Order: sequence, then structure tokens, then C-alpha cells
Amino acid sequence: MAVVQVSVVPVGTGSASISRHVAHCVDVLDDTGLRYRLTPMGTVIEGDLRDILGAIASMHEGTFGDDVVRVLTTIIVDERRDKQLTMDGKLEAVHRRREGR
Amino acid sequence: MAVVQVSVVPVGTGSASISRHVAHCVDVLDDTGLRYRLTPMGTVIEGDLRDILGAIASMHEGTFGDDVVRVLTTIIVDERRDKQLTMDGKLEAVHRRREGR
Amino acid sequence: MAVVQVSVVPVGTGSASISRHVAHCVDVLDDTGLRYRLTPMGTVIEGDLRDILGAIASMHEGTFGDDVVRVLTTIIVDERRDKQLTMDGKLEAVHRRREGR
Amino acid sequence: MAVVQVSVVPVGTGSASISRHVAHCVDVLDDTGLRYRLTPMGTVIEGDLRDILGAIASMHEGTFGDDVVRVLTTIIVDERRDKQLTMDGKLEAVHRRREGR
Repeated sequence: MAVVQVSVVPVGTGSASISRHVAHCVDVLDDTGLRYRLTPMGTVIEGDLRDILGAIASMHEGTFGDDVVRVLTTIIVDERRDKQLTMDGKLEAVHRRREGR
Repeated sequence: MAVVQVSVVPVGTGSASISRHVAHCVDVLDDTGLRYRLTPMGTVIEGDLRDILGAIASMHEGTFGDDVVRVLTTIIVDERRDKQLTMDGKLEAVHRRREGR
Repeated sequence: MAVVQVSVVPVGTGSASISRHVAHCVDVLDDTGLRYRLTPMGTVIEGDLRDILGAIASMHEGTFGDDVVRVLTTIIVDERRDKQLTMDGKLEAVHRRREGR
Repeated sequence: MAVVQVSVVPVGTGSASISRHVAHCVDVLDDTGLRYRLTPMGTVIEGDLRDILGAIASMHEGTFGDDVVRVLTTIIVDERRDKQLTMDGKLEAVHRRREGR
């Protein structure tokens, strides 16, 4: 299982606000059934890597439109095979370390 | 004001767990007084860009140690000058877009 | 057509050198027939986005092994639909701008 | 010594082409005297980390202007302290691995 962050940014749209495009990407992601969480700098998704990359390709492609001819998408994949990696598990590990001191 | 995500990863440590190093980075960040939030894939910081880059340099440098000779740090900076950009503001903009439909 | 940068990093291997793993990833990429170029910070690939993401999934998965249980992969996708985007074209556009002054 | 990749992208400019802004960033970097190399997906710089982060802050800030109110900058830092890390050295290590087989 992988934990993956993605951020999809349209370039050259004439507006510095991109929340409309982010909201559309989240709609696309909703339809996949994958677990995800919004953060101030992107969307974190957890699940099978190939499923997630397929969802991201759809988010990226769905951002093109009449006023969008260029899209920049940044993806960071973190995958472990020695233990189950989850969004909550990653955060809890850091909190435990800090409390343990 | 900028919103910046950072992730600091030691390479070649012999352990796949890095939560101890992340916890140390958060300690370093705590000492700066900057506002931040942990996410499953990094730490998001808000404030003046030069202050934040200085804090990140300290987090990166503080990760080197007896067993850490290589550190990989990924930084994503988002800055707007036409309006006040904040971590909460960015999230709220997306939620408003989704609720407005 | 997309231009995509990828960097695949094994975490917790006990060695700060990762060139052996990068070389293996390049072998995997060679087999796909996609055009690519090595840079000091990753590999830049050009072609159809879904083909490239499939290749990257194989590079990422091929990095796991006896001594590698965690892999971190960073991907940056740049795609334009108003003109043909290529690795060479992107570099030439910058050079032309600088020479034109 | 660190090897650092940076990519600076103006958002909401009304034009999908960003080569003019990249060229300006390279001018700013030229003035610092730091060694760098252009790639299709960014600029790779080598040198002292704090010097490089200072240069990147100037590149980022210099991108704002009359028609640019939002700038997105992505930075990847790779630093080793057990050996001298250089742009050429990183590429050669991969080439040597591949030829040695």
C-alpha cells in the first residue's frame, strides 16, 4: 500500500486562483472510491499505487479545458512493503516519537 | 506571505522508519515560532518566505548525524501577493467551491 | 505529449549511494522504448502521460528487493495541449529568450 | 556541498508559455556565480546549501511583477557529507554502474 501526495496546477489561466480546478480534481478522485485527505498544499491518497496513478492521470487530464492548455502535476509516492503504510499511521508515528521524549 | 511544504528524508540509514528524524525536524521548527501543520507527507509552514527557508535549512542540517550522511529535502513554495495566503484559507477556498455546487 | 521528471529513492538501505538503484531504473525505462534523458537530479521522460506513468510504476516497483522495503518516488508532470511539448523544445525556448536580449 | 533542483512557475499569467520567466530566473542565478545547469524540467545548482536557497529566494521573488501575483517554486535538495557531491559526479556514478554490467 502506498501513500501518495498530488497537486495539480493549471498554468496560464489568467487567474491566480486555482480552487475551482482543485475542487474539480477532488470530484474526480471521489468517484474512484480511494481514501484521501486534503491538505493546504495538495491531496494525500492511500491505496494501491497503480490505482492511485490512474486516478491522478484522470485528475490531471480533467483539468484541461477551454481555458486550460497547460497543466503541471507534482506527485510524491511513499511505499513500504515491510509494514502497512497509512496516512494516519505516518502521522501517529511522529506524534508518538515526540510524546515519548 | 508564503505557504510552504517541506519533507526531509535521511538516505542510507539502515532503517526504513524515519519518524525519529521527522520528530527532530519538528522540534527544530517549533523553536522558530513559525506556524505549521503536520500532514502524512510532510510539514506545511506559513509565514515569510526567507524565514521559512532559513528554518528548512536548519531542519535539513539538523538531520545529519553519526548515522546520517545524506539528506534529501523536498520543498514546495506557494506565494501570492494579491491576497493573504494562509494554510486555512487555501483549504477553505476548495471546500467553499465544492459546497457551492 | 507530456514531459515528466522522475526520481526514485530507496530508503533505509544502509548505504548512502543509490546509483545502483538508479541504473536499474534506467534499465527498466530502456525496455519501454520511451525517450528520456538523465539529469543530476532525476530522469526526464517524454511521451504519452499514461505510458510514462506505467513506466514509472515499473521503475518504482522494480526498486524493491531483499534490502529495499521502502521507496520514495517524486514525479513532476508538465503537459501542454496547445503545442507539442518536448524536452529539447523546452530548453530551446529558454535559450532563445536569453539570446534575444 | 549540495546539489539542488529548482523550478519556478508563475500562476495565472494568461499565457501558457513561461520561458520568459525562466530566462529571467537564470539571469538572477547568473549574478550569484553559483554553478548550474538547465534541464528540461528545471535548473540544477551546486554549492553551499544556504547560498543556493538565497539564490532561489531571489529567483522566486524576481518572478513577481505587474502580471504575476502568484508564484509556485519547487525545490529538491540532495546533500551528502561523506563525499563531495557534484552534478557531474552524480551522473557519472550512474553511467559507471550501467557500463560495469
